[in-house]
Amino acid sequence: MQFTLGHFFLLGFLSLVSSTVYAGGGEHDPFAPILFVISCIIIAAIIGRWLATRYQQASVLGELLIGMIIGNIGYWFGSDLFLFIMHLDIVNQVLTLTWEQGLNVQQALAHLFTPEQLNSSVGQAFSRIFASQGASELLLIKLSIWIFSSLGVILLLFMVGLESSVAEMKQVGKTSMLVALIGVVAPFSLGLLVSEILLSDSPLIVHLFIASTLTATSVGITARVFKDLQQIHRPEVRIILGAAVIDDVLGLIVLAVIVGIVTTGSLNIGAIAQIFIVSLVFLGILLTVGEKIIHIILIKTSRYDPEHSRLLYPILLAFLLSWLASAIGLSAIVGAFAAGLLLKEEHFAHVPTSQHTRPLSLRESFEPFEKVFAPIFFVLMGMQVNLTTLFQSDAILLSLLLIIVALVGKVVAGFIVSAPLNRWVIGIGMVPRGEVGLIFASIGKSLGVLPESVFSAIVLMVIVTTFVTPMALKAVLSRIEKQAELSK
Amino acid sequence: MQFTLGHFFLLGFLSLVSSTVYAGGGEHDPFAPILFVISCIIIAAIIGRWLATRYQQASVLGELLIGMIIGNIGYWFGSDLFLFIMHLDIVNQVLTLTWEQGLNVQQALAHLFTPEQLNSSVGQAFSRIFASQGASELLLIKLSIWIFSSLGVILLLFMVGLESSVAEMKQVGKTSMLVALIGVVAPFSLGLLVSEILLSDSPLIVHLFIASTLTATSVGITARVFKDLQQIHRPEVRIILGAAVIDDVLGLIVLAVIVGIVTTGSLNIGAIAQIFIVSLVFLGILLTVGEKIIHIILIKTSRYDPEHSRLLYPILLAFLLSWLASAIGLSAIVGAFAAGLLLKEEHFAHVPTSQHTRPLSLRESFEPFEKVFAPIFFVLMGMQVNLTTLFQSDAILLSLLLIIVALVGKVVAGFIVSAPLNRWVIGIGMVPRGEVGLIFASIGKSLGVLPESVFSAIVLMVIVTTFVTPMALKAVLSRIEKQAELSK
Repeated sequence: MQFTLGHFFLLGFLSLVSSTVYAGGGEHDPFAPILFVISCIIIAAIIGRWLATRYQQASVLGELLIGMIIGNIGYWFGSDLFLFIMHLDIVNQVLTLTWEQGLNVQQALAHLFTPEQLNSSVGQAFSRIFASQGASELLLIKLSIWIFSSLGVILLLFMVGLESSVAEMKQVGKTSMLVALIGVVAPFSLGLLVSEILLSDSPLIVHLFIASTLTATSVGITARVFKDLQQIHRPEVRIILGAAVIDDVLGLIVLAVIVGIVTTGSLNIGAIAQIFIVSLVFLGILLTVGEKIIHIILIKTSRYDPEHSRLLYPILLAFLLSWLASAIGLSAIVGAFAAGLLLKEEHFAHVPTSQHTRPLSLRESFEPFEKVFAPIFFVLMGMQVNLTTLFQSDAILLSLLLIIVALVGKVVAGFIVSAPLNRWVIGIGMVPRGEVGLIFASIGKSLGVLPESVFSAIVLMVIVTTFVTPMALKAVLSRIEKQAELSK
Repeated sequence: MQFTLGHFFLLGFLSLVSSTVYAGGGEHDPFAPILFVISCIIIAAIIGRWLATRYQQASVLGELLIGMIIGNIGYWFGSDLFLFIMHLDIVNQVLTLTWEQGLNVQQALAHLFTPEQLNSSVGQAFSRIFASQGASELLLIKLSIWIFSSLGVILLLFMVGLESSVAEMKQVGKTSMLVALIGVVAPFSLGLLVSEILLSDSPLIVHLFIASTLTATSVGITARVFKDLQQIHRPEVRIILGAAVIDDVLGLIVLAVIVGIVTTGSLNIGAIAQIFIVSLVFLGILLTVGEKIIHIILIKTSRYDPEHSRLLYPILLAFLLSWLASAIGLSAIVGAFAAGLLLKEEHFAHVPTSQHTRPLSLRESFEPFEKVFAPIFFVLMGMQVNLTTLFQSDAILLSLLLIIVALVGKVVAGFIVSAPLNRWVIGIGMVPRGEVGLIFASIGKSLGVLPESVFSAIVLMVIVTTFVTPMALKAVLSRIEKQAELSK
């Protein structure tokens, strides 16, 4: 076993040091402890990726697992910071109650917890932390991690969008569209069924949210797995990537519809239609005249800062489209993804470049941001997996069934293709849920729709689908190679 | 006049829109309004740089001025967000009082304000904002701006450090050292004198803080001004840059000493000596064996993430040295600057690179971060210049005298060089205080040492020294050229 006891203690050390050292130093600059904790998360992500690479897994899996390990060790040891991170929603509610409702912190806690919960170890820890020195510093650190992780996921979806283009989206053939549609409908229906059977006393919105998290396909993870296996030029890969792009948009529309239902409070067909139409109009405008509008805006405005326009205008587009998407009711990441789709290198052809250095490509400019901030999102997601909730038998049964449904629902989608394409390669290639599934789950958690045990079950499903894909793909691809050799 | 009424209205529009729109949308994602406000700040910075370029000024000046204009327009119009930004310290104190002392928000305000202040427009605005919907969102946005601006200044100082190296620091001759020393001692003494005369009833620490802000020289601004004037290869430039580097370190030690005094509460010679020694040991270790230690650490650890080590290890070094510097009592930016000095491209020679793309240089990897985040720091600094405090006659007299002292103190330093070097070029080249002076002032403000009027006077001094340099340098350099033509 390569993962030695030493590694385990290193993890424990990291999780404890990061939660205690920041309070011990004599820093004058309130930003210094933030830098320290963010550094610890970046180091954790590096170790996680290293472990994932050693076991031929996708890097994102390592980041999630290391976050889960550190987060739970820190939580078990009763660290204040990890308590704040595990219960982000409670901290946010205390902030709202104290700053907007005029309560003091103890009144806020009494409002949020039942008397029994207040006497539990978690309730007592919150009572102790609030109204004692360091609570505002903990809030600062928690908010910083959240801000950097939110920035990371916006930039990641922007980068995923950059990998593709509106033209490629349109070129994607019937095959990709069918694979995507079945890959959304099949796991959604199966997920709805499983959820309604297991969580029969939950409202419909919970079932819809669980089902929607099963529809996602992660472009990033899928592409990275094929790259790892050096199979990026197989014909199946193009179909998978095309389907994954459509799947992303379909999934995001599903999410928009469901988030809309949560906000309006009921299953209002009119409201769903309205959101659906607004989403379609928003995306329709972006996909038809979006590129032209952006080209015109860039030509008109890039003279204001030619030196930085290749960097700042794309980031502004990503930020403002994310905000706009959120403002009209869609998820912010839809806007970031659309911004990436819309931008092309050619948009900046007219921008005068410095004579000294070759201009960086859009990808080169933004990769550093994604590499630094996106892992913070995945480590934070891992940290929020509360393993204690998984010991509840209903959550274990739920996650087991979700995993089966997640695998079956996507593999089925691959079966519409015929030889010489390998249906297993396409089906398995669609399996990883990755960041999109996690984003769905985290939105469901932050909206208060998904209880903690369901959230953890979904995260486990995402982890397993991500974990299983490289191994399964490797097995299928080596079988194909063997058959090719035999038929020679 | 190129700065038309249209531009003015655009600024007013920007400042109002950014403070009102975020509250109006139906966003579900709490990160969306943050993206919108950060976008507005980036746009403001672009416009500021564009205006600065039109008038042949340093970009940083444009960012400061646009921040000052937008911040004060928003503040005058009574915008909640700009009130929070202008009074960052009050917001932070309310957070500490509510989350650590168990007060509710109205009790916290009653604790912070006198009854008369509570009845002033500012006090009434705070009373209205707190305990009403949106206060926690305002806190989120304010903290995000602060976090991104703090990240920006850390990255800026890291980049300034990257521009130089330990070897170059050591090569810097007697001339640079003398110019730097006089450029620190002269403005410090003159500043101390002015402060003690004008603010005779303030404690010594205020005088020391004001004097220390006068010692800074901005490497970034100096270099950028010479680049703008296409004079980067003059022999004087090397001396100025060398002196500016030494000046930075000297100034940072001065700052560390003064921050130490504020923290210990009195002018304790033993404590100063201790901080001085700790600073020297910290910097001494970094400058002697630092590069070797980093080389060994990089060789031992870069196998953990070879693909990202060129990006993540430098950023980790910057973050952790910033934290370490802060933990031992120095300013965090000392650590970031040291991290930049220590790192060399050669450190990464052993790291295997991808066969597909040329690896980015350290500078190319980090420039995007600096270009996005550092302007947020300068715009935020501008936004915190409360122009109403400048109408107090003592602040105007103070800033006027500080400006004279700031100019004389640095120009004098140039007079130790002799022909063929031009003493005026060196003296004027040392004048811009830039970000270092602003950082000193903001630390003084956040520690509660510098009253708002003094802070504004210092910012005005920084603005004027930065504003005056390109014009004065241009005049001197064209006189030199004319003389050269006459003597032919």
